[in-house]
Amino acid sequence: MKRLLRALSGEAVWPPPVWLMRQAGRYLPEYRAVRAGVKDFVALCTTPELAAEVTLQPIRRYGFDAAILFSDILMLPWALGHGLEFKEGEGPVLPKLRDEAAVAALDPARVAEKVAPIMETVRLVRSGLVREGFAETTLIGFAGAPFTVACYMVEGGGSKDFAAVRGMAYSRPELFQQLMNVLTDATIEYLSAQVIAGAEALMLFDSWAGVLSPSLFRAHVIAPAARIVAALKERHPGVPLIGFPRLAGVMTLDYAATGVDAVGVDTGSDIAAVAAMLPAHVAVQGNLDPLAVVAGGKAMEAEAMGILNAMRGRPFIFNLGHGIVPQTPPEHVAALLELVRAG
Amino acid sequence: MKRLLRALSGEAVWPPPVWLMRQAGRYLPEYRAVRAGVKDFVALCTTPELAAEVTLQPIRRYGFDAAILFSDILMLPWALGHGLEFKEGEGPVLPKLRDEAAVAALDPARVAEKVAPIMETVRLVRSGLVREGFAETTLIGFAGAPFTVACYMVEGGGSKDFAAVRGMAYSRPELFQQLMNVLTDATIEYLSAQVIAGAEALMLFDSWAGVLSPSLFRAHVIAPAARIVAALKERHPGVPLIGFPRLAGVMTLDYAATGVDAVGVDTGSDIAAVAAMLPAHVAVQGNLDPLAVVAGGKAMEAEAMGILNAMRGRPFIFNLGHGIVPQTPPEHVAALLELVRAG
Repeated sequence: MKRLLRALSGEAVWPPPVWLMRQAGRYLPEYRAVRAGVKDFVALCTTPELAAEVTLQPIRRYGFDAAILFSDILMLPWALGHGLEFKEGEGPVLPKLRDEAAVAALDPARVAEKVAPIMETVRLVRSGLVREGFAETTLIGFAGAPFTVACYMVEGGGSKDFAAVRGMAYSRPELFQQLMNVLTDATIEYLSAQVIAGAEALMLFDSWAGVLSPSLFRAHVIAPAARIVAALKERHPGVPLIGFPRLAGVMTLDYAATGVDAVGVDTGSDIAAVAAMLPAHVAVQGNLDPLAVVAGGKAMEAEAMGILNAMRGRPFIFNLGHGIVPQTPPEHVAALLELVRAG
Repeated sequence: MKRLLRALSGEAVWPPPVWLMRQAGRYLPEYRAVRAGVKDFVALCTTPELAAEVTLQPIRRYGFDAAILFSDILMLPWALGHGLEFKEGEGPVLPKLRDEAAVAALDPARVAEKVAPIMETVRLVRSGLVREGFAETTLIGFAGAPFTVACYMVEGGGSKDFAAVRGMAYSRPELFQQLMNVLTDATIEYLSAQVIAGAEALMLFDSWAGVLSPSLFRAHVIAPAARIVAALKERHPGVPLIGFPRLAGVMTLDYAATGVDAVGVDTGSDIAAVAAMLPAHVAVQGNLDPLAVVAGGKAMEAEAMGILNAMRGRPFIFNLGHGIVPQTPPEHVAALLELVRAG
């Protein structure tokens, strides 16, 4: 079994498997070269040859233990018929979903067709990994978790405090639950299609889970994740799931009860403290500060060694605690990999 | 002893004392009326009659158990000679502190004179509380914690990810430590002056503590808080301190070892889980979601009752988990107070 899959099955693989969130991206010159030739970000995500190419770039350069499908968490609402535009320097811009009509306008029936190019990307990456000799590299598919996707749909983009989506969850609980149900069902189909196309593991990104009060966290982070995990385990036994409820803090233990095989830990958490809370068979993934990789040198070494020393003997996947940032020098990533592989 | 001070001394006062972060502010029409007559926010903070007036407004309206000095966490860097401007709709704008010269330019010697009007506000509020018959209301003084203040100084304002300040902490640790030392020393003097002027309890706001990796959290959140607590306990025995390391998550237990009398809990945390981690004599303050107060009605009631039921029998201060937001209907605050006072 591949190293990453062994860790996800509960084995303390050492040195630990390693990959980095957003490992395909703007810090790599070869990525910027591809990106320069495409009109927009959605086009990049829906052109299988290009999306597969950028997925493979960091594997060729660093030999990570996982390739993660190059896509975006907002491709699912896009496939549901919700608008999506990426504006330079502004991030994603979407229509603001605020009423029943907007939920009713979401069209799950069209998703399969619209995400077909993404499934083609999955197939191309899987065959590309074999063809290029990366037999040990695991292909991870992913989706945004329903709450985080709902955040962008309700707010119409990013937000400092996500007041509109939290307000809707409190003041219009039935409307918000309708939206969450549509997104949860669509996420199950979307992730299942990725497995059928060749994804060997799945990850659910709940980037904004931490803005919710505990009761809303249980209703809109834990409950949908549990439903997604159960459905996927039934359809695809043996395909592991990594959940990443960012900023969940003390709620991480409750989250682990969703049945995920691994929990992603964010930069701000003490990974040893989180690991100590979790059942021993649940793998932990994380959590180097991306800014430590920008700094490199002794600061990066101290941070990385702290994590490695704390996780030795535990099912663990080395990763960042947040996506790698564009200003990261690629040679710092190479130095990081050396550290991790020396264990 | 006043109800709030009893809770801070480790007593399970019931119904719990209650106040709200940013209880003096834009959601109150009487605040907006005062604010409309002042040229800028700094002027409001440095005009004792007006700052005292807005501090007292929510006490008159709701009879909270605490009045918190109306000021801003950035008044300390302002007093150190660092620039500060509040731009409409943009938040604070400061010069970006990036080198040794900028740290050397900070002038602790001028702080006492520059904060003199703020100390006059403290005196006016304290006498105003007595004169207006609020004999049970505790006056809380406060400061931003050094790390959070450094965030704004290095970034030049708010930030999505505080990459510059985190980068400085990793790449220029000596420079950053110099800045932290200046801020920590100045914070001790500033809080001590507030006690001398009449503050009966103190609060340290570390709003951005959660962006730090655990090692940086220990160095720049816990260590300075421990130094501030020790110095103030020595100078002013019996004056309790509330620490609020926002988004500290699993690091909250480490934070409690600073010696604070109470820990503020943010909206995203399960207050029962946090309280269970802490020593029984440490009071807990929090953590209703401000958006639940905007929603009001059943949603607010369910959230508030969940917190009250979890905290019964423990030293506890009811509060929000983040500042009250401008769109909050004042009558929802009145309804909340009724709930809390019914226990």
